[in-house]
Amino acid sequence: MDNLGVLFLSELVGTAMLVLLGCGVVANVALAKNKGFGGGFLMVTIGWGLAVFAGVIVAYASGAHINPAVTLGLVANGATEFGNAALGVTVPVSAVSVLAYIGAQLIGAIIGAVVVWLAYKQHFDQEPEPANKLGVFSTGPAIRSYGWNLVTEIIGTFVLVFVVIGFGRNGDAGGLASLGALPVALLVIGIGASLGGPTGYAINPARDLGPRIAHFILPIQGKGGSDWSYSWVPVVGPIIGGLLAGWSALLLLPIIT
Amino acid sequence: MDNLGVLFLSELVGTAMLVLLGCGVVANVALAKNKGFGGGFLMVTIGWGLAVFAGVIVAYASGAHINPAVTLGLVANGATEFGNAALGVTVPVSAVSVLAYIGAQLIGAIIGAVVVWLAYKQHFDQEPEPANKLGVFSTGPAIRSYGWNLVTEIIGTFVLVFVVIGFGRNGDAGGLASLGALPVALLVIGIGASLGGPTGYAINPARDLGPRIAHFILPIQGKGGSDWSYSWVPVVGPIIGGLLAGWSALLLLPIIT
Amino acid sequence: MDNLGVLFLSELVGTAMLVLLGCGVVANVALAKNKGFGGGFLMVTIGWGLAVFAGVIVAYASGAHINPAVTLGLVANGATEFGNAALGVTVPVSAVSVLAYIGAQLIGAIIGAVVVWLAYKQHFDQEPEPANKLGVFSTGPAIRSYGWNLVTEIIGTFVLVFVVIGFGRNGDAGGLASLGALPVALLVIGIGASLGGPTGYAINPARDLGPRIAHFILPIQGKGGSDWSYSWVPVVGPIIGGLLAGWSALLLLPIIT
Amino acid sequence: MDNLGVLFLSELVGTAMLVLLGCGVVANVALAKNKGFGGGFLMVTIGWGLAVFAGVIVAYASGAHINPAVTLGLVANGATEFGNAALGVTVPVSAVSVLAYIGAQLIGAIIGAVVVWLAYKQHFDQEPEPANKLGVFSTGPAIRSYGWNLVTEIIGTFVLVFVVIGFGRNGDAGGLASLGALPVALLVIGIGASLGGPTGYAINPARDLGPRIAHFILPIQGKGGSDWSYSWVPVVGPIIGGLLAGWSALLLLPIIT
Repeated sequence: MDNLGVLFLSELVGTAMLVLLGCGVVANVALAKNKGFGGGFLMVTIGWGLAVFAGVIVAYASGAHINPAVTLGLVANGATEFGNAALGVTVPVSAVSVLAYIGAQLIGAIIGAVVVWLAYKQHFDQEPEPANKLGVFSTGPAIRSYGWNLVTEIIGTFVLVFVVIGFGRNGDAGGLASLGALPVALLVIGIGASLGGPTGYAINPARDLGPRIAHFILPIQGKGGSDWSYSWVPVVGPIIGGLLAGWSALLLLPIIT
Repeated sequence: MDNLGVLFLSELVGTAMLVLLGCGVVANVALAKNKGFGGGFLMVTIGWGLAVFAGVIVAYASGAHINPAVTLGLVANGATEFGNAALGVTVPVSAVSVLAYIGAQLIGAIIGAVVVWLAYKQHFDQEPEPANKLGVFSTGPAIRSYGWNLVTEIIGTFVLVFVVIGFGRNGDAGGLASLGALPVALLVIGIGASLGGPTGYAINPARDLGPRIAHFILPIQGKGGSDWSYSWVPVVGPIIGGLLAGWSALLLLPIIT
Repeated sequence: MDNLGVLFLSELVGTAMLVLLGCGVVANVALAKNKGFGGGFLMVTIGWGLAVFAGVIVAYASGAHINPAVTLGLVANGATEFGNAALGVTVPVSAVSVLAYIGAQLIGAIIGAVVVWLAYKQHFDQEPEPANKLGVFSTGPAIRSYGWNLVTEIIGTFVLVFVVIGFGRNGDAGGLASLGALPVALLVIGIGASLGGPTGYAINPARDLGPRIAHFILPIQGKGGSDWSYSWVPVVGPIIGGLLAGWSALLLLPIIT
Repeated sequence: MDNLGVLFLSELVGTAMLVLLGCGVVANVALAKNKGFGGGFLMVTIGWGLAVFAGVIVAYASGAHINPAVTLGLVANGATEFGNAALGVTVPVSAVSVLAYIGAQLIGAIIGAVVVWLAYKQHFDQEPEPANKLGVFSTGPAIRSYGWNLVTEIIGTFVLVFVVIGFGRNGDAGGLASLGALPVALLVIGIGASLGGPTGYAINPARDLGPRIAHFILPIQGKGGSDWSYSWVPVVGPIIGGLLAGWSALLLLPIIT
């Protein structure tokens, strides 16, 4: 396999893992009869954070973006290559590589969502409320207001990408603050707890659109609509937030040499 | 003691520690009058994760599998020796060493379960509901459906073994992502939160079968049956999941040289 | 930009991040219709801890005080320069640099609070209770008693600054115990859980006063008063606690050479 | 100050910090009108774990036992000196040094408990139930049965000391698994969640007896008795558990050379 193929597969596997565990915790908390039913928002945020942890671990070869907003944010920040230099698998940043990353993320997210459905098949079947089923797959606003929902998603994704870029510049905290899996996991728990209230913090276009496509396609018993009218918000918001973070970091997170 | 004896003892001690703390948190949450009674599913997942943490720490000599699905998954992944090379205690992978590891894990799990019973003796005696007593020892399905329960256990164990193999290949995150205790603990918290809803996430044949044997043997006041009809699911599912993960990792987690 | 400018910007960005995520988690838990509504005190403490984590990460250039009590505590402890020696950006401790740090922290806190308001705009608008709106911005006492409230804030801030100084002296735990982001985050979770009951643990004058100013200025729908009569407690208490910690550490946290 | 004096002060400060934050979280959860009131057992276990974290950090000079059961367990395990070799402050193990450590731990625990009372003064005054006040200071059994309560405390402390000794032998997980603060904190969270149900997990004679003495002495409004009839259990149990762990580790945690 050539380098771009390796990186494509890595992003696909990582995002599938992310969505499997991430949507999984929502299934556990939201679908009837589960042992974690009603487990609370803190459990959801911890579950999503550890989903990022696992996803980043298995996507080591590609640098573990597993999120188009991160990919675009790094481009805005001036990245010239993607991948893992230590492993010797890198590709130059170009329209092709950006699209390969985003495509892999989206396909991985769809696969992850299908596996969640299999893992929770009986609970989907016995859950009476269609909205709870969709909620396992994709985010939705607590108070529907496209403009303000967009603002919230922009802010949340800005924090994600800005701090991720900060990890790479933090000389003080050593290895822990590198682009490792744990700091990003902690960051995502924090964003969920702190900025997840209004929209359920998609902060990742693939994480939201991929599972929404899965929800649309899968023969889920008694499912309702896939809420396509809202679907652009958790795609456009994170893209804007990621780009803003990449540009802002050029100014606000100085590399002092 | 020869190397295999050292490794046998190490796996036994580690799995006993795992089950003591793991089944312990369920006892605390599920048995009447405990200070942690009704503590919630998040507390259970954190307790089990930290049980893995402690178990891995004390099983350093044997590489801390403490789970037959990990042992078999590593074999499927092509491992040629078990143990701790840094300490100089290793054995070649063979039918004998695999059986020694699994035997030690099962015996350790039984011992750990007995100690849980001692630690919570008064609470077992005063708990009126037999199902709650069995639930401290072994997992059971939220919705009984052997086929789908098996699917859930396969998926959960796949994630466990796949990401554990990923830890060893993640060059980026340094020591933290090695086969240390903390990453595995975090992973198990994540699997519990995200995939534990339908079956209570055995994801480890020894963790489920060992305590079930203990439940069957021990003179627990007012205990009911040990639910042997379900007992094969949390044994077979994790074995399948572990093997699939070991084989998949050959393809999906490339070692780039 | 000269060094003081770099450090000023760094403290400003870090404190804005701190307050955005910190006040954000309170908004999520306290304002009507949020997905995290009623998420509990543990979620608040974890959210604030991870807010510190993110704030420290992005304020690497200035040494990440993001708290006037830390700045003053380090002065009391005998610090002679501020900044990040590894990056080569330091300034001597002087009235000018102390005021620059504190000014940046206060301005950053105001900015962070404004962004929280934007992220939760719809929820502020639909929240009926003015006290809940103020509670997102600033702390208030559970039992109003200025003297005892002051004692609690002094004790909480003492622990913060004293242990932070301890991080720098702990040879045993290596990099993890350095002035990195994770140990401080864990410490702040601990202080919140353990000493946050009576006053909501400001333990940081900028974190409390900055958002209070934002609350006073912003056109928040249906807001009440900004409780200026209490506002001096979470400013004076943390300053006293920080100074006492800096002095005590000279005696109690020996540097053995 | 001579070395023994340095170590005495270090253990005193560390144990005071431990008890301040540890008893503090119970006060927050158990005393009326606190912001963390009713925060749940998970919050208590996390609070105690982070109390250990902070206590270990500030007791770096003495090796951070902050628990007589750890001190005695290390003696049983064959320790020949106490202190911090890296800092050059050590003393030989002897009756004098053991008594100095334990004495410092007990005095520190009393001081920490007094400060908790000050931090929560108003809440102690307004709490109607005397048992809740005592519960902030010292542990008590869920089901009173001295023999079985003793068993539970022995098991819990065995796990603590056994795994702590394991930290020092775990070559694989690197610095994280050393005698640093985070692993011990995680371990104590785990023990609390998993074995804390029946007795509230003293697992530390100083942590229980010191605050009980403080409760007895302090002029706490409307306090009841200090339950001296139970007080020997959380002293004797942890001592037995610690000694058993120290001896068992000689056999079960091999040092392979």
